[in-house]
Amino acid sequence: MSIAADSTVNPALRVAVIGAGYWGPNLARNFAMSTDWELVAICDTDAERAQGLARRTGNPDVVTSVDDLLAGQHVDAVAIATPARTHHPIAMQAIGAGKHVVVEKPLADTAARGRELVAAAQEAGTILMADHTYCYTPAVIKIRDLIGAGELGEILYVDSVRINLGLVQPDVDVFWDLAPHDLAILDFVLPDGLQSVSVAAEGADPLDAGKACIGYLSLPQRSGALVHVNVNWLSPTKIRQMVICGSRRTLVWDDLNPQQRISVFDRGVDLGRQERVLDDVATRKGVTISYRLGDTWSPALSEFEPLGLMVSQFASAIRSGTPAPTDGHSALRVLNVLEATSRSLADHGRHVSLEDPVPAGAVREER
Amino acid sequence: MSIAADSTVNPALRVAVIGAGYWGPNLARNFAMSTDWELVAICDTDAERAQGLARRTGNPDVVTSVDDLLAGQHVDAVAIATPARTHHPIAMQAIGAGKHVVVEKPLADTAARGRELVAAAQEAGTILMADHTYCYTPAVIKIRDLIGAGELGEILYVDSVRINLGLVQPDVDVFWDLAPHDLAILDFVLPDGLQSVSVAAEGADPLDAGKACIGYLSLPQRSGALVHVNVNWLSPTKIRQMVICGSRRTLVWDDLNPQQRISVFDRGVDLGRQERVLDDVATRKGVTISYRLGDTWSPALSEFEPLGLMVSQFASAIRSGTPAPTDGHSALRVLNVLEATSRSLADHGRHVSLEDPVPAGAVREER
Amino acid sequence: MSIAADSTVNPALRVAVIGAGYWGPNLARNFAMSTDWELVAICDTDAERAQGLARRTGNPDVVTSVDDLLAGQHVDAVAIATPARTHHPIAMQAIGAGKHVVVEKPLADTAARGRELVAAAQEAGTILMADHTYCYTPAVIKIRDLIGAGELGEILYVDSVRINLGLVQPDVDVFWDLAPHDLAILDFVLPDGLQSVSVAAEGADPLDAGKACIGYLSLPQRSGALVHVNVNWLSPTKIRQMVICGSRRTLVWDDLNPQQRISVFDRGVDLGRQERVLDDVATRKGVTISYRLGDTWSPALSEFEPLGLMVSQFASAIRSGTPAPTDGHSALRVLNVLEATSRSLADHGRHVSLEDPVPAGAVREER
Amino acid sequence: MSIAADSTVNPALRVAVIGAGYWGPNLARNFAMSTDWELVAICDTDAERAQGLARRTGNPDVVTSVDDLLAGQHVDAVAIATPARTHHPIAMQAIGAGKHVVVEKPLADTAARGRELVAAAQEAGTILMADHTYCYTPAVIKIRDLIGAGELGEILYVDSVRINLGLVQPDVDVFWDLAPHDLAILDFVLPDGLQSVSVAAEGADPLDAGKACIGYLSLPQRSGALVHVNVNWLSPTKIRQMVICGSRRTLVWDDLNPQQRISVFDRGVDLGRQERVLDDVATRKGVTISYRLGDTWSPALSEFEPLGLMVSQFASAIRSGTPAPTDGHSALRVLNVLEATSRSLADHGRHVSLEDPVPAGAVREER
Repeated sequence: MSIAADSTVNPALRVAVIGAGYWGPNLARNFAMSTDWELVAICDTDAERAQGLARRTGNPDVVTSVDDLLAGQHVDAVAIATPARTHHPIAMQAIGAGKHVVVEKPLADTAARGRELVAAAQEAGTILMADHTYCYTPAVIKIRDLIGAGELGEILYVDSVRINLGLVQPDVDVFWDLAPHDLAILDFVLPDGLQSVSVAAEGADPLDAGKACIGYLSLPQRSGALVHVNVNWLSPTKIRQMVICGSRRTLVWDDLNPQQRISVFDRGVDLGRQERVLDDVATRKGVTISYRLGDTWSPALSEFEPLGLMVSQFASAIRSGTPAPTDGHSALRVLNVLEATSRSLADHGRHVSLEDPVPAGAVREER
Repeated sequence: MSIAADSTVNPALRVAVIGAGYWGPNLARNFAMSTDWELVAICDTDAERAQGLARRTGNPDVVTSVDDLLAGQHVDAVAIATPARTHHPIAMQAIGAGKHVVVEKPLADTAARGRELVAAAQEAGTILMADHTYCYTPAVIKIRDLIGAGELGEILYVDSVRINLGLVQPDVDVFWDLAPHDLAILDFVLPDGLQSVSVAAEGADPLDAGKACIGYLSLPQRSGALVHVNVNWLSPTKIRQMVICGSRRTLVWDDLNPQQRISVFDRGVDLGRQERVLDDVATRKGVTISYRLGDTWSPALSEFEPLGLMVSQFASAIRSGTPAPTDGHSALRVLNVLEATSRSLADHGRHVSLEDPVPAGAVREER
Repeated sequence: MSIAADSTVNPALRVAVIGAGYWGPNLARNFAMSTDWELVAICDTDAERAQGLARRTGNPDVVTSVDDLLAGQHVDAVAIATPARTHHPIAMQAIGAGKHVVVEKPLADTAARGRELVAAAQEAGTILMADHTYCYTPAVIKIRDLIGAGELGEILYVDSVRINLGLVQPDVDVFWDLAPHDLAILDFVLPDGLQSVSVAAEGADPLDAGKACIGYLSLPQRSGALVHVNVNWLSPTKIRQMVICGSRRTLVWDDLNPQQRISVFDRGVDLGRQERVLDDVATRKGVTISYRLGDTWSPALSEFEPLGLMVSQFASAIRSGTPAPTDGHSALRVLNVLEATSRSLADHGRHVSLEDPVPAGAVREER
Repeated sequence: MSIAADSTVNPALRVAVIGAGYWGPNLARNFAMSTDWELVAICDTDAERAQGLARRTGNPDVVTSVDDLLAGQHVDAVAIATPARTHHPIAMQAIGAGKHVVVEKPLADTAARGRELVAAAQEAGTILMADHTYCYTPAVIKIRDLIGAGELGEILYVDSVRINLGLVQPDVDVFWDLAPHDLAILDFVLPDGLQSVSVAAEGADPLDAGKACIGYLSLPQRSGALVHVNVNWLSPTKIRQMVICGSRRTLVWDDLNPQQRISVFDRGVDLGRQERVLDDVATRKGVTISYRLGDTWSPALSEFEPLGLMVSQFASAIRSGTPAPTDGHSALRVLNVLEATSRSLADHGRHVSLEDPVPAGAVREER
């Protein structure tokens, strides 16, 4: 069977990128390079900017409004990389026109609008996906695989730190700016996704910027694990580190150490598990406490461009009719935590309950 | 004037060490080496252990009860290194006998008992001091000096991390075990000491050890600064790092990096401070946001044994009649936070108000 | 005076890039973005490759031979990014046609051919420059400035390590592949350039690859300083570190640490310099040895694209008629060391004398 | 069989420590703590210093001359920690009296004197051992075990760096001060010990201290591997790192990183070994070059005091009559390299041949 015949079976999907600003060019470049896709249009209200991007990506059409885009030549899907507050209207319009949609994070600027998008896509039978790019990096996929294979055992706690001297954003606080990364990653790698009982947030605005510039999130999980996230725009040092402690082993992901991005430590404390006693033994109230001090292991990681994988999985989701790993429901779980975070901040850091509107089991089965 | 004459003016003070277990030997060794002190007795209920320690520290007397110690030969002061729950009765007895007292941390096992000790010492006119050893390290003294000299400007936030694979303690949780270090250090280095409005604590006990093994503390300060502390017994990696962010510069203390323990970063964000605009400029709602990206500086540190300085300052406090840097009031501020921490933990992480029973101004003036 | 008038005074220079393989696209992109330059042609024997590059750089002309290029439209300068063995014939042809020339490193594949190029350019009155890109990075320029300002004092030794798991090159050994970087950098930052008395080389080929894959160079300088360079294709870890020890301070450049690329240590040993005794004092044969243990300082670095600065300095050199920092003479000093390295390797690591055919003083005055 | 009976079979050996200066106290402390040994005397010309040490180590006898020591009470063995130039006469006297001897490094101050000691001990039938302490550390023993088990494959090269701001020694240059560590370690961990064909040394004395303060050693091995050692007293940073590259894996030992002292990298280049091609493939002259980019692994290390193991192995050697791991022959191979180093330095860095007076096979069989 020839490649041409193959192409007939799987003809390239036609996509338009809406928004030619900061992130749009990355999406356009990856769609243009993908054999799954044909990039047919760039849409931006700034025609010159759209034109410039089109020139660097194989000269797709240029349009200056979503109306024109949808009225014009046929597209199967759109990728939206516009300001967050415009995600909802543009995506609703595209879904309404029967298009598959991938949206730059966050899915929407409120959880309610996110829910509308998910419902609309479900009704229209189209694929809705968030571009949570970290979930398509070699490191995060490896972490998901290791946890899925039981290498860490039961997850006991997660501690994530994402701090640096960052741009004080005009519209959102540091939680909405940085925490979506941590939350989307955790929803992706944890065996049952992000299943938070509640969220308590501590924030501070020491510069009087009018919004939290440093923040801490506590997210007790249904499993009993505690997830903690630290985000900060005012740190002189840059740290991107996530510790995932399991009953068997603990994984540390240091994204700024290219020579050893992931370390898996066979170190920990065991209570009352005498069969695993290796090094040292102590007893407490009839319970045995033992300390494991084993080897450390750093798996090799593949190298590939995350956005290349993302556009490929978007295509797969469309072709197979099954949700993408970072589908609308996943994006919604992230939005729910962010909204509860804002409520907790307003209520002096009290725990805000998270009624999960997205049953985890159901969602996960679909993955 | 000869040295002999000097000795007449400042004869060595006579001290006994009570408790020859884990920490007592360190205290005994430093008292024995100090020209300020004469180590005259070791007291431990285990005579053999006391004898062993005495042999290595110049053969002071050995006694097996505090009664015998106080009834016997004359001592000016006692150093108490016994289990925490016994600090209060032993110290009360010593103060009652008119002795100066230094107590291993924590000062007492409850804030109420700590207050009793402080009151008793005040009434008896004796010196009461906590051995918060970190406050006598070269790094912490340098940090206090830098902050005191205004090098960091106004303190905006503090983030302290003290985690490692540690012993799960039989009697106390991770907050009472590790956080006293962070709290005592902050009380020592911050310009007005630890002046917390309230404390909110998040803890987790993922191993069912019966107590929190990982914990997070949020301590808003009267100054507006947010102090956050992370303590953890279950971390495979060891971190001892404190970030003190100021309006002018930010200091990072990494106690496990002997080649660069302290770094001072001239990096940060300024709002509406146009006179300091250096690198990049953006405006927001008529407010100017500017980013400083200046040099980093790592001061050289002296080298000396912290406990040697501690015993010397204990002698100075006795001779001058002025409080030591880590006096009873300071230790009490630490205990107050620890007690509020336990209350917050029991109340789902709600902020527990800290009525400061120790007026900061008054205390600081005495230092 | 308007910008248009300015443009008349300084019209953009016209340049062609020869070679559209690995490095040519970087050069083409930077010429295309520069206001000093107009990129008028891409030349490659592979027309398709040249066309592809032209499309991404503003559609300059495409030609497939140097003859056509020089016969065709007017160019002021050419940038040569072809295989090393072709640098000499192409550059000679371009110089013969009166063009200014910048050549990817190394200038030529032998020192003799390098000398021919330098002589030809001198005779023709054209600018000849090597693209030693590292010399245009913020870090290296800062190092040059610090040394030039006397911050390090007299240079005592240099130790440079450039190792990683690298491609075993088909044509050259590890010395010719990696050491040109270290040598060009040192020629640029040292006050009198690279003024080596001799070179001794140790190499090893443990895989029987037919050439040295790991190597060590010792380069005693006329000043008395010892320069040592370690290059290695077989190291599992990647290190890019240069230590420049001076009589006053020592600089460490760690190019893989973006958070602290340059550290300046006020630490060292002083002999017989009693006025600087700070910390510890010992005497030896009537000579005082003292140890300085001062602060460490890490200067902030500007951020700019090195190749952008390189093409700008190429333009300046042409307009002013003065040599560029990495002119032909500098490139020749690098080639001379590389040739002597090969001779030392063939002679069991003996020191091979370097008769400097490029008087340092003369060259430096021109800079 | 009771412990008492055991003690009859293996009564504690009686040892005296000669020299109570810098290193003697460490030896005395470990002999005093060992069940294999009874510390019966401290010998030092400075009676007060000897007395002070005796007080801290269980009050053995104090003598002020080796004559008195050997004439007095019975000892089985002596440990010599006096200045290097006195090692030979003291050890000769002790061997002459039939004592087993362990000597602080270096064994002697010249290779000839070392050979005399080895010959004398052989003739007298006593154990002669050098206290190359590093060979008894957990890390070095693990390295020896890994190499011995074939985990690294055939050794291709070794690169050792031992630099810091060190004391400029009055009597010896930096090679004799620091390189004995590297050489003794390599003699211990390499499968056939240190089997150097020749040695070439580059040194520099940029401070006019009258001796080399920085140095580089190249030691081609009979196996074809190249050993390179860098020692330096003038470095502002402290590095203790040894890379041992093998055909299968490469080990990096970073002794200053307690959290990951040993890393084993499954990374490297394979030539013509097509069965191992894993990641990337290239061909060259009919030869296949492939790159392995596998996992990294850091083995857990036991924790014990190296000197405790050393004194225990000294006892075992005496009891079994078999050489200790760091016996006289091993120490002699270190001395031979050091002497050849000095000759190479004096001869402008030329390779000085090493005729091996100690056949490797023979020696190793005995271990």
